[in-house]
Amino acid sequence: MALTALPFDDFRDLINLVPGPDRGAVDAVKARDAQLTKPPGSLGRLEELVEWLAAWQGKADPSVIRPVVAVFAANHGVADRGVSAYPAAVTRQMVENFAAGGAAINQICAANDIGLKVFELALDYPTPDITIADAFDEAGCAATMAFGMESIAGGTDLLCLGEMGIANTTVAAAIFHALFGAEAGDWVGPGTGVAGEGLARKVEAVRAAVARLDGKTDDPLEVLRRLGGREIAAMAGAILAARYQKIPVIIDGFVVTAAAAVLWAANAASIDHCLFAHCSAEWAHAKVLDAMGKKPLLDLGMRLGEGTGAALAAGIVKSAAQIHAGMATFAQAGVSNKD
Amino acid sequence: MALTALPFDDFRDLINLVPGPDRGAVDAVKARDAQLTKPPGSLGRLEELVEWLAAWQGKADPSVIRPVVAVFAANHGVADRGVSAYPAAVTRQMVENFAAGGAAINQICAANDIGLKVFELALDYPTPDITIADAFDEAGCAATMAFGMESIAGGTDLLCLGEMGIANTTVAAAIFHALFGAEAGDWVGPGTGVAGEGLARKVEAVRAAVARLDGKTDDPLEVLRRLGGREIAAMAGAILAARYQKIPVIIDGFVVTAAAAVLWAANAASIDHCLFAHCSAEWAHAKVLDAMGKKPLLDLGMRLGEGTGAALAAGIVKSAAQIHAGMATFAQAGVSNKD
Repeated sequence: MALTALPFDDFRDLINLVPGPDRGAVDAVKARDAQLTKPPGSLGRLEELVEWLAAWQGKADPSVIRPVVAVFAANHGVADRGVSAYPAAVTRQMVENFAAGGAAINQICAANDIGLKVFELALDYPTPDITIADAFDEAGCAATMAFGMESIAGGTDLLCLGEMGIANTTVAAAIFHALFGAEAGDWVGPGTGVAGEGLARKVEAVRAAVARLDGKTDDPLEVLRRLGGREIAAMAGAILAARYQKIPVIIDGFVVTAAAAVLWAANAASIDHCLFAHCSAEWAHAKVLDAMGKKPLLDLGMRLGEGTGAALAAGIVKSAAQIHAGMATFAQAGVSNKD
Repeated sequence: MALTALPFDDFRDLINLVPGPDRGAVDAVKARDAQLTKPPGSLGRLEELVEWLAAWQGKADPSVIRPVVAVFAANHGVADRGVSAYPAAVTRQMVENFAAGGAAINQICAANDIGLKVFELALDYPTPDITIADAFDEAGCAATMAFGMESIAGGTDLLCLGEMGIANTTVAAAIFHALFGAEAGDWVGPGTGVAGEGLARKVEAVRAAVARLDGKTDDPLEVLRRLGGREIAAMAGAILAARYQKIPVIIDGFVVTAAAAVLWAANAASIDHCLFAHCSAEWAHAKVLDAMGKKPLLDLGMRLGEGTGAALAAGIVKSAAQIHAGMATFAQAGVSNKD
């Protein structure tokens, strides 16, 4: 099946029919963990990470051998509203910086031995300004989600999602406002560093974009179609495809969370294979994570995007997997167990 | 000078006369950071980590090439009071497990390319039961601190401290009780998992050990000498030596923090070169960090010791250093800077 021909409505079935966790694999991990030379539970969240890997890789011996960061880049018509601290040209310039190895994400991937793939989504053709028009028609949204689904072909055992796109925190804030309600200003922060009148324009853009939906915010896929952007739609597709291909996913920050939130709003269980890497310094991120009941792994005041938080978290997940695989049991090591 | 001949009182001078940070190196890091292809401040705590490395390595281009975890192991007479969930024999068994590569710290070091050194401190001769006798005489305490100072010879550019020693959370709790006051029970938690009557015995041991000091808790080095233990004294020496040798230090959890707290109580500035890796699940740890005004990097519910939290944090520090060293500037990458 050519995914690019998938009708928009078929994504509803894909979201609703996601496979569940491999409980047998989780039980096997727990049984082995209880035998490892350490007090039970003493590795805290690291132990939970291994169970999570097992559940979604569907393996009693989960491993992280080929982790990949996939960065999706797109441009947004709403950038014309002056909502960002940087000009829209920076999206392409940063994609070139990724290719040349000069960005932050390149260094984190090198330091942690993680692969890096960058997907640019028609940068010369920004999605329409969402304060006045829909980001996509149905076919366009479906094709972009399908592109995201196909992007992870080639194989990885741990997918980290990242993004680049001037003005995309405006789009993400609009999605959160549509999905979670409250006021436009409750979801808008400085992004790359916009302040003063720029920040006021950003709040107004989010308000106008969601007002245009006229209260029709019950259908998360429609929210995605009407607000965009391309990187968010593609990442939603990638998250979904990873689930079917037994690949756990690490969500980066504010913008990647918007892709996850669309799926969550349609079927909360559809993102159970996603780990939220960190709490962004973009302050509304904590509120979104809280609304979805998700506890991020790290809290380092980061707000760069590019998958930087996800890649750092992947380093910790790799360590957790290696601990579980490599440790000796009490019997093997001749260590006395608890009284 | 043979450090093992250093008189006890000379450590007071070493603590009080520690060299300060290299402010020029910090300024150079800040100046370069402002030119890197990312919004200013967008890497949050990672940027602070690079400034911290620069300050204490004394280098405008800080790097983490040879990180080392040093694990200090010791035994404690107070273990005879039934304060731990595990028998005292486990200290040596775990040291053998470290040597065989079977412990958690071995796997984290391998996953993050960090060296591992283990120092055992007369395991067959536990320090006296501190509920009835001092852990050291002055010469013994000085020699143990000196051993810790010498242990880091051979070179590293980032020292992670870890420990192993059945009953050493009892000793650490006694040190915190002596240094920070309150009640014995305020500093005692389950450690490796003691509960019920064992936990009550642990509280009583901490109370009795500190009561024995008869209110003479003003001199932190005396607190260390009288309460021990060997791994804690050695780590205090290692922290101090690292400062003089321009080696930043990562402090692991509850027990390593006791070594740092002794120095902090004598001269708060003497541990400014120390990063607190994580907040332990041993609940009093958060209180100690708070009392010293230290903000840990990670909060993963870990309580294993061995340097496991410090090694995980070192992985993040390595990434931070590599980001700073490897990223392109706006000018190099041809990326447009902020409006």
